[in-house]
Amino acid sequence: MKTLEVKLDSRSYPIYIGQGLLQNAELLSKHITGSSAVVVSNETVAPIYHDSIRHSLGKFRQSQVILKDGEQYKTPASLDSIYTHLLESRFDRGTTLLSLGGGVIGDITGYAAASYQRGIPFIQIPTTLLSQVDSSVGGKTGVNHPLGKNMIGAFYQPKCVIIDIDTLNTLPDRELSAGISEVIKYGIIRDPAFFGWLEDNMDKLLSRDAETLSYAILRSCENKADVVARDELEVTGQRALLNLGHTFGHAIETGLGYGKWLHGEAVSCGMVMAANLSHKLGWLTSNDVKRIRKLLTRAHLPVDPPREINERRFMELMSVDKKVLDGQLRLILLSGIGKALMTSDFDLQALRDVLAMRNAA
Amino acid sequence: MKTLEVKLDSRSYPIYIGQGLLQNAELLSKHITGSSAVVVSNETVAPIYHDSIRHSLGKFRQSQVILKDGEQYKTPASLDSIYTHLLESRFDRGTTLLSLGGGVIGDITGYAAASYQRGIPFIQIPTTLLSQVDSSVGGKTGVNHPLGKNMIGAFYQPKCVIIDIDTLNTLPDRELSAGISEVIKYGIIRDPAFFGWLEDNMDKLLSRDAETLSYAILRSCENKADVVARDELEVTGQRALLNLGHTFGHAIETGLGYGKWLHGEAVSCGMVMAANLSHKLGWLTSNDVKRIRKLLTRAHLPVDPPREINERRFMELMSVDKKVLDGQLRLILLSGIGKALMTSDFDLQALRDVLAMRNAA
Repeated sequence: MKTLEVKLDSRSYPIYIGQGLLQNAELLSKHITGSSAVVVSNETVAPIYHDSIRHSLGKFRQSQVILKDGEQYKTPASLDSIYTHLLESRFDRGTTLLSLGGGVIGDITGYAAASYQRGIPFIQIPTTLLSQVDSSVGGKTGVNHPLGKNMIGAFYQPKCVIIDIDTLNTLPDRELSAGISEVIKYGIIRDPAFFGWLEDNMDKLLSRDAETLSYAILRSCENKADVVARDELEVTGQRALLNLGHTFGHAIETGLGYGKWLHGEAVSCGMVMAANLSHKLGWLTSNDVKRIRKLLTRAHLPVDPPREINERRFMELMSVDKKVLDGQLRLILLSGIGKALMTSDFDLQALRDVLAMRNAA
Repeated sequence: MKTLEVKLDSRSYPIYIGQGLLQNAELLSKHITGSSAVVVSNETVAPIYHDSIRHSLGKFRQSQVILKDGEQYKTPASLDSIYTHLLESRFDRGTTLLSLGGGVIGDITGYAAASYQRGIPFIQIPTTLLSQVDSSVGGKTGVNHPLGKNMIGAFYQPKCVIIDIDTLNTLPDRELSAGISEVIKYGIIRDPAFFGWLEDNMDKLLSRDAETLSYAILRSCENKADVVARDELEVTGQRALLNLGHTFGHAIETGLGYGKWLHGEAVSCGMVMAANLSHKLGWLTSNDVKRIRKLLTRAHLPVDPPREINERRFMELMSVDKKVLDGQLRLILLSGIGKALMTSDFDLQALRDVLAMRNAA
């Protein structure tokens, strides 16, 4: 088992990466301070791990909330079903919530923990590659609003993150690829050596070689933890760089309806759009655009926007994104592989051209 | 104008107390960092101050959300109406929310600010005595859940608190008294000299003498700010002492249905119940119980529980209160005027006797 630390003063916490961790009762118990624990999971994940988790939490008063599976259930209604269960079953402020599932479950559970009785402890147990390398680390929690993704939420840190690589054995191929999208992102925005390593090891990663997966997750979490430690509340702009491809991606997810494309797929396409725009502005070489496009394609990820969303609709959808500050659209763009920057200083026509591009390769 | 500071490191903020502050454009503008401001208020308060606030915010892009008046509207639905307005009108993360109204408006607005796009700045402008001396200071925000009061929320500090004493001119007598209930509370839990001052000055306070009101508010805010600075997140137990009478009071509010009794009225009755229990346990003299009961009665506040809630129902309602930790009921009790303590070490039969008492004077 590997351990790394997210350094946030009094809110610091460890990330554990290894195999068989869900069966490790000692590890789970160590981070539960009260006498009760409630697992929040979804209909797909819960049945697979139900017995091992229940056994590992044997000494606690325990219960579970099972939500439906999918981004379309990342809603205030799901949140309320957690509050209602906790209140009806008299779970008090000393209760620890455990989120067992992908990013949707982690985000909802984290926000339920942040807001139930003004905050109770929680533990992240991400079971998809995407959530292991991204959303489970760093304390962003929340739910969607009908008018925009992640519009309701809080910065709220877990007590620990437990990444059991065994959970990836049952992950569908499409979701594995969606996770690899965010892994590649770290290479593109701040870690060119890691990008090179991914070019060399993509085939082993796709075949789920345990060593390769383990290293990819560790390196991703190290990158994420480092950024979060420097800019927990997304104030200085460093954390915002993690949103490469996300403004475009969110527009795709909202435009198609939540759940049609996976988050990682939308981000993959968004990163290529950001790369295309950076190239149009003369900041990024065509060779770098090609390397990005090629690596994502090898990971079976989409690199062109869906035909259903035209340029006008893209502009409309992007203007409610959180990256809009005081009415000005800011984007994460690239000046090289490993070099991202946030800027509102770009030619609007170049953006429109990129939004209108299809199959540019 | 008097200024005092709530000391919370990077989250420190000033409280301003004075007359004519709503017309003070410079004061309001000073604490708005972005270019837009949205006022959240209710149907009763908004029409009175609409023009002065709009004028004072003249240089900002501004808008307002008007909620219905009353504790029964402190709901997730009201919260959603704020989110929806902000999203529909494209108010971004740089927007400052201003809460203009009593505790209900302050709590909802504060929580909307805490959770909209994971947190935007907000300013408290409390217009009732109750909210001026209590809820606007200290960062407790939230809404009610059908199964319990204040069950959903966050600790989230405002950028400043602006207390314009002129707003008390239009406050109904019953609400003035409800505010005095919390003023008296500071005397009972930690400030015996202030309790004595209130015994001497209750008549002037009830007649709304500006000097007297101003001093009572200042002294209350000083007490509150001091407690919050020592225990922002209610961890060490000091902040919990501010909940004297609240466990009983919340049970009354929930049992009768939100809004039937004012919060301050329920707390008044709850404080007498806590005093009665403390006396039964031999910790508080009958003379101190009488002084507490008498001062609250002089302020036209209820001191006996409503007949609709019997002892059995009280126990039921109290067991979901946040003061229940790991299944054990904790109460704030008294060992003298100015000396409060939190304990779960009391005789349950004594509690049952107090819950069954009516017109004990």
